[in-house]
Amino acid sequence: MPHPAEYEAFFEQRLETLKTEGRYRVFADLERRAGSFPRAYENHLGTDVTVWCSNDYLGMGQHPAVLAAMHQAIDRLGAGAGGTRNISGTTHYHVLLEQELSDLHGKEAALVFTSGYVANEAALATLGSQIPDCIIYSDALNHASMIQGIRHSSAEKHIFKHNDPADLERQLATADPHRPKLVCFESVYSMDGDIAPIAKLCDVAERYDAMTYLDEVHAVGLYGPRGGGIAERDGVMHRLSVIQGTLAKAFGLVGGYVAASAALVDFLRSFAPGFIFTTALPLAVVAGALASIRHLKENPAVRARHQERVQLVKHRLLEAHLPGMPPASHIIPVLVGNPRLCKEISDSLLDRHRIYVQPINYPTVPRGSERLRLTPTPLHSDQDIDRLVEALVDVWHRMMWHKVA
Amino acid sequence: MPHPAEYEAFFEQRLETLKTEGRYRVFADLERRAGSFPRAYENHLGTDVTVWCSNDYLGMGQHPAVLAAMHQAIDRLGAGAGGTRNISGTTHYHVLLEQELSDLHGKEAALVFTSGYVANEAALATLGSQIPDCIIYSDALNHASMIQGIRHSSAEKHIFKHNDPADLERQLATADPHRPKLVCFESVYSMDGDIAPIAKLCDVAERYDAMTYLDEVHAVGLYGPRGGGIAERDGVMHRLSVIQGTLAKAFGLVGGYVAASAALVDFLRSFAPGFIFTTALPLAVVAGALASIRHLKENPAVRARHQERVQLVKHRLLEAHLPGMPPASHIIPVLVGNPRLCKEISDSLLDRHRIYVQPINYPTVPRGSERLRLTPTPLHSDQDIDRLVEALVDVWHRMMWHKVA
Repeated sequence: MPHPAEYEAFFEQRLETLKTEGRYRVFADLERRAGSFPRAYENHLGTDVTVWCSNDYLGMGQHPAVLAAMHQAIDRLGAGAGGTRNISGTTHYHVLLEQELSDLHGKEAALVFTSGYVANEAALATLGSQIPDCIIYSDALNHASMIQGIRHSSAEKHIFKHNDPADLERQLATADPHRPKLVCFESVYSMDGDIAPIAKLCDVAERYDAMTYLDEVHAVGLYGPRGGGIAERDGVMHRLSVIQGTLAKAFGLVGGYVAASAALVDFLRSFAPGFIFTTALPLAVVAGALASIRHLKENPAVRARHQERVQLVKHRLLEAHLPGMPPASHIIPVLVGNPRLCKEISDSLLDRHRIYVQPINYPTVPRGSERLRLTPTPLHSDQDIDRLVEALVDVWHRMMWHKVA
Repeated sequence: MPHPAEYEAFFEQRLETLKTEGRYRVFADLERRAGSFPRAYENHLGTDVTVWCSNDYLGMGQHPAVLAAMHQAIDRLGAGAGGTRNISGTTHYHVLLEQELSDLHGKEAALVFTSGYVANEAALATLGSQIPDCIIYSDALNHASMIQGIRHSSAEKHIFKHNDPADLERQLATADPHRPKLVCFESVYSMDGDIAPIAKLCDVAERYDAMTYLDEVHAVGLYGPRGGGIAERDGVMHRLSVIQGTLAKAFGLVGGYVAASAALVDFLRSFAPGFIFTTALPLAVVAGALASIRHLKENPAVRARHQERVQLVKHRLLEAHLPGMPPASHIIPVLVGNPRLCKEISDSLLDRHRIYVQPINYPTVPRGSERLRLTPTPLHSDQDIDRLVEALVDVWHRMMWHKVA
């Protein structure tokens, strides 16, 4: 480089490497259909498929109460918010949504961002860079958005072993007791589906006067009596300095947030570039999210049905001797361990059985742990589960046969 | 620090500093009302106000065609996309939107992000970090999102004087000719409203084999025969390596994008964390944006009316001897030069005249250049303009009187 053609050649060569390694991403082209979830229309195949890898964990993205709230907001208020939160983009719906979220997590205040990714990036980059001398302790399996936020903060960073309070304690014990500290972890880890020992991590953090930052993205709406997440289920919401969550996934829309003390939230509102310099979420999204949160606060039966479906799928996979990973949450990883094979299994499930499960490859998971990631919802029927297990057994046997042959 | 109470005290003290400096942000609490833009209901005052600072530049956020497309998408497809673009979140609407955008800018491909901020951050961080030895040249007044993206790339960075091709050339001339280079600038600068000499900047960049990255966030939908932006108006779209834009502002929704060569877009799709690890935009947003782009492609009269309104406001401000800054685009800054006074003027416009113009303070603009920022739309009537000018004259005279007294 450089020469215009050389830039192009560089991009093409990097893409070629992905293809050679079997981890070039091909997006399915789906048409969701309101009311028929988990069914969707696949445009390349030209046929309906059953989706088994959606993060619309409860199907709230098609719930009548959510859709009605969106319609109403559009009729009353229109489409976009019209500006940043500061410059004409704060509507009364945004105010109400932040009140609803602070109530959900038992915190003084909440702040909505354009996505969960942005919430993590903006909050952690701002806290880590603005709090003088801050040291950040980060779980080894934290999500890319947390890793980016911590990196962008330029704060001193230490990684503790995944879900390991003892390792966290060893590291905190050697730190200067006068420096501010922030311990960052998730409740449900999205790719393994395992759950953090929140109370024990808080015990350790409190002993060393560290703040705590909990990402509940894969837990809000799904756990706890009102859908407040694992921290609500475990009765420890009050012990966390910051709870971060999403309006996508269980709540079925898009957007992210943090809930915390009034001062901390106001601080992020005032200093986080990723909050300040971006257009506020559209009113239909905000209104839909409000309806979804309220519905799930009052309907624990949805969560019970969800867990029942999950247990049934786990049980059936075990019976069929499929390589499901140890069950802890609603996320069921099925280990493959090779990117090409993972893609082939996924393609075969789609082509032969009209079942859509996206292959999960590096860098989303470590190399050698490539997998399918199943997410049963309350809307998957007994018959859907039968078909899934039959299809997996069929494809697994074929693949193993090919490998032997 | 540390001690829990000390963290709180730190946040509070930093907020106190903002208040002392007169730049603590107070959000207006508005209810937009479909069909009555630029009118909105202000919840603190309990009355209707006229909005003069919206980035919904053409009122498309309330256009019937946009709202109808959103309603239809909700009825047909539901609320959220249900996952990241790679994991069950790519719907046919996303595919169509990216085709529409690549057509708009005359590029081979386009990629949609959750916001314009994220598009800039993710694209620049990824290009700057992945292209070996890349040097980035950045206009001195580039937006916060570009600055963050460039910073996060860790690439060598040089800042050239605002809109100054000669200064850019001086800097490029001294660089190693074998290193890859990327020149980043905007077409319409959001706070001064001035316009870049795109062709001249491209001349320079091409002489030194540098790629070019143009942010058209405040121009798409507003300029050019089909709303392709200033680059379309100037007939230079084909000379830019990357054109970045937004679905908020003129298109009235939310979301951002880049348009470029197929290889470059596929490269960002495959390597940008801010694209990969986040939930896709909701279907109603995507469908609404599609309708908005198509409408503005075919209706140059909206752009003509917009410019006519802008010229009228500029003319009237000049007549009234108000300190409007030199006119170049649809953004009309009215200089105040002091954060407290700026806030007082804004408060007074709202309280006395029911006119909402948010004060713009540091860090959005440099200290000493605090301002009001007026954005006339095609929906502001002659009477709205009369009232605005009367109100500004009234408030300006009062403020000057107070300063003297």
